[in-house]
Amino acid sequence: MDVKNILQQVKNGEISIDHALHELKTQPFKDFDYAKVDFHRKIRNGAGEVIYGAGKTSDQIIGIMKTMIENDQKSILVTRLNKESALKIKEEIDLEYYEDAKIGIYGNLPNSSGLGKIVIATGGTSDIPVAEEAALTAEFLGNEVVRLYDVGVAGLHRLLAHLDILADASVVIAIAGMEGALASVIGGLVDAPVIAVPTSIGYGAAFNGVAALLSMLNSCASGVSVVNIDNGFGAGYMANMINHMEAK
Amino acid sequence: MDVKNILQQVKNGEISIDHALHELKTQPFKDFDYAKVDFHRKIRNGAGEVIYGAGKTSDQIIGIMKTMIENDQKSILVTRLNKESALKIKEEIDLEYYEDAKIGIYGNLPNSSGLGKIVIATGGTSDIPVAEEAALTAEFLGNEVVRLYDVGVAGLHRLLAHLDILADASVVIAIAGMEGALASVIGGLVDAPVIAVPTSIGYGAAFNGVAALLSMLNSCASGVSVVNIDNGFGAGYMANMINHMEAK
Amino acid sequence: MDVKNILQQVKNGEISIDHALHELKTQPFKDFDYAKVDFHRKIRNGAGEVIYGAGKTSDQIIGIMKTMIENDQKSILVTRLNKESALKIKEEIDLEYYEDAKIGIYGNLPNSSGLGKIVIATGGTSDIPVAEEAALTAEFLGNEVVRLYDVGVAGLHRLLAHLDILADASVVIAIAGMEGALASVIGGLVDAPVIAVPTSIGYGAAFNGVAALLSMLNSCASGVSVVNIDNGFGAGYMANMINHMEAK
Amino acid sequence: MDVKNILQQVKNGEISIDHALHELKTQPFKDFDYAKVDFHRKIRNGAGEVIYGAGKTSDQIIGIMKTMIENDQKSILVTRLNKESALKIKEEIDLEYYEDAKIGIYGNLPNSSGLGKIVIATGGTSDIPVAEEAALTAEFLGNEVVRLYDVGVAGLHRLLAHLDILADASVVIAIAGMEGALASVIGGLVDAPVIAVPTSIGYGAAFNGVAALLSMLNSCASGVSVVNIDNGFGAGYMANMINHMEAK
Amino acid sequence: MDVKNILQQVKNGEISIDHALHELKTQPFKDFDYAKVDFHRKIRNGAGEVIYGAGKTSDQIIGIMKTMIENDQKSILVTRLNKESALKIKEEIDLEYYEDAKIGIYGNLPNSSGLGKIVIATGGTSDIPVAEEAALTAEFLGNEVVRLYDVGVAGLHRLLAHLDILADASVVIAIAGMEGALASVIGGLVDAPVIAVPTSIGYGAAFNGVAALLSMLNSCASGVSVVNIDNGFGAGYMANMINHMEAK
Amino acid sequence: MDVKNILQQVKNGEISIDHALHELKTQPFKDFDYAKVDFHRKIRNGAGEVIYGAGKTSDQIIGIMKTMIENDQKSILVTRLNKESALKIKEEIDLEYYEDAKIGIYGNLPNSSGLGKIVIATGGTSDIPVAEEAALTAEFLGNEVVRLYDVGVAGLHRLLAHLDILADASVVIAIAGMEGALASVIGGLVDAPVIAVPTSIGYGAAFNGVAALLSMLNSCASGVSVVNIDNGFGAGYMANMINHMEAK
Amino acid sequence: MDVKNILQQVKNGEISIDHALHELKTQPFKDFDYAKVDFHRKIRNGAGEVIYGAGKTSDQIIGIMKTMIENDQKSILVTRLNKESALKIKEEIDLEYYEDAKIGIYGNLPNSSGLGKIVIATGGTSDIPVAEEAALTAEFLGNEVVRLYDVGVAGLHRLLAHLDILADASVVIAIAGMEGALASVIGGLVDAPVIAVPTSIGYGAAFNGVAALLSMLNSCASGVSVVNIDNGFGAGYMANMINHMEAK
Amino acid sequence: MDVKNILQQVKNGEISIDHALHELKTQPFKDFDYAKVDFHRKIRNGAGEVIYGAGKTSDQIIGIMKTMIENDQKSILVTRLNKESALKIKEEIDLEYYEDAKIGIYGNLPNSSGLGKIVIATGGTSDIPVAEEAALTAEFLGNEVVRLYDVGVAGLHRLLAHLDILADASVVIAIAGMEGALASVIGGLVDAPVIAVPTSIGYGAAFNGVAALLSMLNSCASGVSVVNIDNGFGAGYMANMINHMEAK
Repeated sequence: MDVKNILQQVKNGEISIDHALHELKTQPFKDFDYAKVDFHRKIRNGAGEVIYGAGKTSDQIIGIMKTMIENDQKSILVTRLNKESALKIKEEIDLEYYEDAKIGIYGNLPNSSGLGKIVIATGGTSDIPVAEEAALTAEFLGNEVVRLYDVGVAGLHRLLAHLDILADASVVIAIAGMEGALASVIGGLVDAPVIAVPTSIGYGAAFNGVAALLSMLNSCASGVSVVNIDNGFGAGYMANMINHMEAK
Repeated sequence: MDVKNILQQVKNGEISIDHALHELKTQPFKDFDYAKVDFHRKIRNGAGEVIYGAGKTSDQIIGIMKTMIENDQKSILVTRLNKESALKIKEEIDLEYYEDAKIGIYGNLPNSSGLGKIVIATGGTSDIPVAEEAALTAEFLGNEVVRLYDVGVAGLHRLLAHLDILADASVVIAIAGMEGALASVIGGLVDAPVIAVPTSIGYGAAFNGVAALLSMLNSCASGVSVVNIDNGFGAGYMANMINHMEAK
Repeated sequence: MDVKNILQQVKNGEISIDHALHELKTQPFKDFDYAKVDFHRKIRNGAGEVIYGAGKTSDQIIGIMKTMIENDQKSILVTRLNKESALKIKEEIDLEYYEDAKIGIYGNLPNSSGLGKIVIATGGTSDIPVAEEAALTAEFLGNEVVRLYDVGVAGLHRLLAHLDILADASVVIAIAGMEGALASVIGGLVDAPVIAVPTSIGYGAAFNGVAALLSMLNSCASGVSVVNIDNGFGAGYMANMINHMEAK
Repeated sequence: MDVKNILQQVKNGEISIDHALHELKTQPFKDFDYAKVDFHRKIRNGAGEVIYGAGKTSDQIIGIMKTMIENDQKSILVTRLNKESALKIKEEIDLEYYEDAKIGIYGNLPNSSGLGKIVIATGGTSDIPVAEEAALTAEFLGNEVVRLYDVGVAGLHRLLAHLDILADASVVIAIAGMEGALASVIGGLVDAPVIAVPTSIGYGAAFNGVAALLSMLNSCASGVSVVNIDNGFGAGYMANMINHMEAK
Repeated sequence: MDVKNILQQVKNGEISIDHALHELKTQPFKDFDYAKVDFHRKIRNGAGEVIYGAGKTSDQIIGIMKTMIENDQKSILVTRLNKESALKIKEEIDLEYYEDAKIGIYGNLPNSSGLGKIVIATGGTSDIPVAEEAALTAEFLGNEVVRLYDVGVAGLHRLLAHLDILADASVVIAIAGMEGALASVIGGLVDAPVIAVPTSIGYGAAFNGVAALLSMLNSCASGVSVVNIDNGFGAGYMANMINHMEAK
Repeated sequence: MDVKNILQQVKNGEISIDHALHELKTQPFKDFDYAKVDFHRKIRNGAGEVIYGAGKTSDQIIGIMKTMIENDQKSILVTRLNKESALKIKEEIDLEYYEDAKIGIYGNLPNSSGLGKIVIATGGTSDIPVAEEAALTAEFLGNEVVRLYDVGVAGLHRLLAHLDILADASVVIAIAGMEGALASVIGGLVDAPVIAVPTSIGYGAAFNGVAALLSMLNSCASGVSVVNIDNGFGAGYMANMINHMEAK
Repeated sequence: MDVKNILQQVKNGEISIDHALHELKTQPFKDFDYAKVDFHRKIRNGAGEVIYGAGKTSDQIIGIMKTMIENDQKSILVTRLNKESALKIKEEIDLEYYEDAKIGIYGNLPNSSGLGKIVIATGGTSDIPVAEEAALTAEFLGNEVVRLYDVGVAGLHRLLAHLDILADASVVIAIAGMEGALASVIGGLVDAPVIAVPTSIGYGAAFNGVAALLSMLNSCASGVSVVNIDNGFGAGYMANMINHMEAK
Repeated sequence: MDVKNILQQVKNGEISIDHALHELKTQPFKDFDYAKVDFHRKIRNGAGEVIYGAGKTSDQIIGIMKTMIENDQKSILVTRLNKESALKIKEEIDLEYYEDAKIGIYGNLPNSSGLGKIVIATGGTSDIPVAEEAALTAEFLGNEVVRLYDVGVAGLHRLLAHLDILADASVVIAIAGMEGALASVIGGLVDAPVIAVPTSIGYGAAFNGVAALLSMLNSCASGVSVVNIDNGFGAGYMANMINHMEAK
């Protein structure tokens, strides 16, 4: 019985006010038509759905995807999807698999919309898997992405040689392991919001991304915020939100 | 001598190409008309300047402010300013001092512009100093700010009672110490970007903000990014950037 | 307008169902008569209120207390209250102040109820302030408390000499700093739930309570759970809940 | 020779007082009729025994179980039991194996007793193995368990939709990895004791459960206590103790 | 009533066996004549008592000392005693106060006994307070102590110049902050047991003694064991035990 | 040319003083007759040699052992030796391999000497490999060892039932993982030096032995010192030194 | 078009000043004749190139090497190269592979130049792989290297026996795991700069090199600086720079 | 009696060979004419002495200085000297005190020697005290120092504007707190050795210099080595050694 029904029955005198009150109290949430039911899975009307693949079996993922597709979902993004699972899913569903990003995509990527381009910069080539997770997420959500890989601060000229690309960015995602200085340097160069992603690349006192994480949290540049180590999806998602800001 | 001058002199034959080359090499940066020279101090043409007050004496701050004012700067924000320094500065400069935020402001706050409202939510009343640092920063940079204080998740009804305010936000700044769960809960409720600020409020295993920091970095909600512990300024600055996004 | 009113107006035809729906949606929480509104402050019908004193000025506390008293609150517990604030409060409100526990109590302690006695054991005499915070909290909430102080495991005979007291406990709160072994030893001796409280007592590798915290979390005894370092209030509160369990 | 015998012999003059003194000194413990001899293995008269399977070979476990069974033990719970060992044990003993919980059970589960229901809530589906360890432990010890899985705070409506289940709980076990906010949110919603279990689910700055552990220890909600990371057994055991509280 | 009395009364028929059983059960420990009742305070028959002064008021210490002296205690060691407390105690009790070691001693030091000399070596002069705590403890317990201060490994010749003293040691206490290498070097040079004491001397990555602690725990030399940071008393006590080993 | 020779040649006028000086300077150490040359490998005249097996190939170990045996070494202990290497060594050398302790021994164990017995106690059965490393080391070095396994503090009666064994110890090695409380409890019960060994047994917040390590370093009992996590060899070696103390 | 060309064209009137300005702005870096373009790959004119092999596939490495060789590169060093990749590369390129150092070298090692010898000392034999990475790097860059392995401080005589080698060093690289004391001892003995390399050798509280790292950072000897855990390449590179210092 | 004397007496038959042997053994180090006796205090013949002032009273420092001056020491550097002590020393000794660097200098600074200039760069103005400690140390030891302060990477143009100064450096000391990115950026720009000094400047997740320390240890640039947090002296000393390298 939904809230409208309850009210209707009150109006009709079919149930007492006390009864209605009890009904409303014991199930107050499930029938309310909030704008954002199960928000963390549904991103935007007409847009794609996202499945977090880690810890799910290929059968579970197939099950979820089939239900979505039956409900007319046109595109689905699966993150943290290992190759074995991807191959099994492909036997039943038409999935495009990106091995480095560990991402599978069902359906077509949308045309890019948004305020401008999302530039994704990495310190080294080892950071590319995280960068591709961010890039594909952003593209899946309807953004134009510019990849600027291997521009770490140890060879500053490589970064400076692409100042025009950075200056043109709507949002920048700065991805680096080791000492993570890239986020601060970019943060000091550009006027756009910078989402910093520490990666677990490095060894010894890199502590699986902790050095880069602390470096990024302490950035002396303004306009830098940070997501979890290796969280390319989170950065791509956040950048998409910023790149689709509208007057409210 | 700026670059245009150098080129003009080359054109005019006033200096040799080698001389021009030397000029360009030895001071290649200071004369280039980058969009963002000394960006971290200057925020936007016509907008206010920011001085990071920590570790600066009142005399140093007065000196910097006077120079700015002489250069027609209309408004200046001084962060991390203790009361003693503020009182000394007020003897010479017309400064408004906000003690809880440890912020001093010279000049008038601008009219608010931007895409919408920045909602600043805190878990408890002890988080308010950090929240006010964020709020005043955002207001100084031209944003309308809505304060939603003391809505920690232990009393969820308080937060839920203000869903309308959250739903109306352009950007949300979620500020909390202790377990920092506020960022995840808000991240799950709203569709706007959330900037999470861990605070050093708490005791024992709160480890001066580390518990809240880790909690926020691991938020299970999408669209949450994090700044340093107690970094209200950074959050306000980032929120301002997002709230002023334009097509590029 | 509360929910009952809304329903009444629907019944009377004074407002439309859509209007009622809107009313329910936009303020769905504040008027619902949940059993536990603002739970973290109100503990039990007819029981005392708790104010967390840390980070509040004496004026703020006085204001809150006066409002409570005007609303017929008979007893109030203020935790983490320093002596200076307590003295100021006493000028206006009849407050009993316990300096070691940093607790102030307005009104009378209730008669003890509950299933049995709460035994509070400490490893040393330095742990007593935390123990007293737990003890007074439990007493304020209506429990009989037995204090068993300075029974650390380095002098095991002292603990074993009071086995009868432990065996008689309904709940045990085990409080210790340094190596925190007391919780495991008591956990192995008694059949009652044990709430372990690490304290910040110790030096060097005690790391302000971390050693005791880890020790307690890793207790090899079953039936032990842990609260934050120095969190006497939390332990007393939890013990009270357990000691007042009823068939549901 | 038990203590009563020694005393009898003293009375009868069969042994000297010095001899009796020596007897009492050299074996003072094993003959005393304490209420709780070898408590951590025997849980309750007539109840099941528990074997901690980690680090034990299947042969060792078979040996222990056979001895127990020969001593008329009707039911046995084996925790942290891997599949290989379980299969070997099943060749000789009638064991029910629960692979996700890594638990093996010999004998029948008892009818549920206790004050009410134990509700076990998890933040995500990846937390289910820990939850099942808790659930089976509680059921083995005679409790009715209600499973409320995948109700993490990022989708708050899912949790709120089951408020009635939570409100009906005698004890709640809140299990979550990542940021562990579930414990605080539930702690703020319900009036029952909450046992929080951090899990090692997550990546990067989750640090194998440390983020969730710290989050839970710092819960701003009262009535929450914490067990070790992934310690489903400990939570189930503690919840059972609380759900079986009696006047003492 | 002690155990012998109980047995005597049983023998005499003055109390029943059940009564005796009850007596033995309810206070089984305090009357047993163990060799080591309340061991952590009493060290050896005829030897001195130790009071841990930290966290005790001067009044509490005076009270304890007076009781001991009334019970014919000839010498008492008070550790972690600050100057203020010491001065107050000296008004009532004849106390010798050693300010650097923060130790107060009542009564005369015993003649040294034991197998040989305890050599106490420090890396620098800043480690001397911890060293003196160890030295006075060892002397108070009846050991000859040789002080070898400021022989850190950065000036290896200073240490090597005293090889004869080290070679002559029965036990060595190696005390160092910063990198704590002294323990390993001495451990490699001598044939005697080495008790290593990390100190909180240093700055930055010394982390208040953690660097030295880890260094000492990982000593590549055999025959080195470690006590807590700054725990001079523990080292002196352990060295005394080793220096007084006897055939058992 | 040894020092005596150099001096003889100086005396005889066979070499100049400057030449002698040069000789002494360039090789000042290798010819000095220190009591302890290459101490960490040779333990005691006539006693066994020790090889640290970790990180050495079976061929390297065979090589070292053959050289030792050719030099009339009668017994050799190899620690941290994995099974594969042990099997290869056994093809060429008569080695006794103890798989749980990961120790290989060549030659016969000596008769036990020393002041008394070394008691080795463990908290659980999982700690036995570390305990056996300690036990075999101590036995190899000529000590009588008493094993007291699985006497963790959660079942205190098990430990107390063997008080006589503990009271009879010359040295006690207390080995435990998880919360490591065993060392403190034994330290409070016995009058002998206690060498505490934290083990990496446990999960979650045990942090691979860190919880037990901190617990042991903070022991509230006197006479306890600590070696590295899982360092059974170091404990056995230290205990041997203490058990062989002689007047010096 | 390089800068000189641009200037020439300005002079010649072939392009406008605005055009020239645009040219300079959009590619301001790549054509500037800085002394150090792409420095981190090219080390010295005429010297070898370095490829960081970690995270690169053998195909990627082959591609890079072939390009370099086609550009007349005479020698190439590949670090962190596993055996599988090395074997594949050797099928196509004439590579010398050093398995312990995980280094591959193409081309001939240069004659040694520099101010003197680089002495590389290790604490144990397990540190040799890191030492060889340092040694081969230094040799590849044109330095004479003296290896002084297994001279840890537990057997100080071994180190002291080679004082002449140390005294003769131009730079010393001190490599050690466990407690890392070697750097301090050598730093105190020699007058040359010491580059300290902590290694991940050890167990338990060695924390994969953290103990050695902290030890080295806190060295009480002057003239010691530190590189990352296991960073043999970094140490060899730094030592080479120092050993090739020239008047500037 | 020095070694030459001993040998002379042996030659002269004034002492026996055994006597000489004893003399050499018991004091083998203090008379050997090593190049570096008590090195950490004496830096170079004719050069200044250094006193580490932390933890020394003004009286102790005065005593040491007077002895040095009586022994014709011409210049002395005192580090970590607080203002109070400096003022007391100045009453008796002609000391120049530098308050920001907490350094006192007796005597004249030497003329600069060395291979070139030492450039000292800081990220911010708050890092200047550490920088001045490094600068004065280097100047005291005879180096020309160029100060390049407040050139943090958030305003990259400031750093790039001084490329000529950096390019001209013999050694660079890069000093920064917060995220410490300066060291990597400079390391990538210059061809000279870089000594990186993390500072404790920053807040929150800067963890008193740990973030900068980790960042610097993980620098992706070659030719960077690191000293302890805030260790300006160590950096200045190391830079001096490198700047005075000579062929050996």
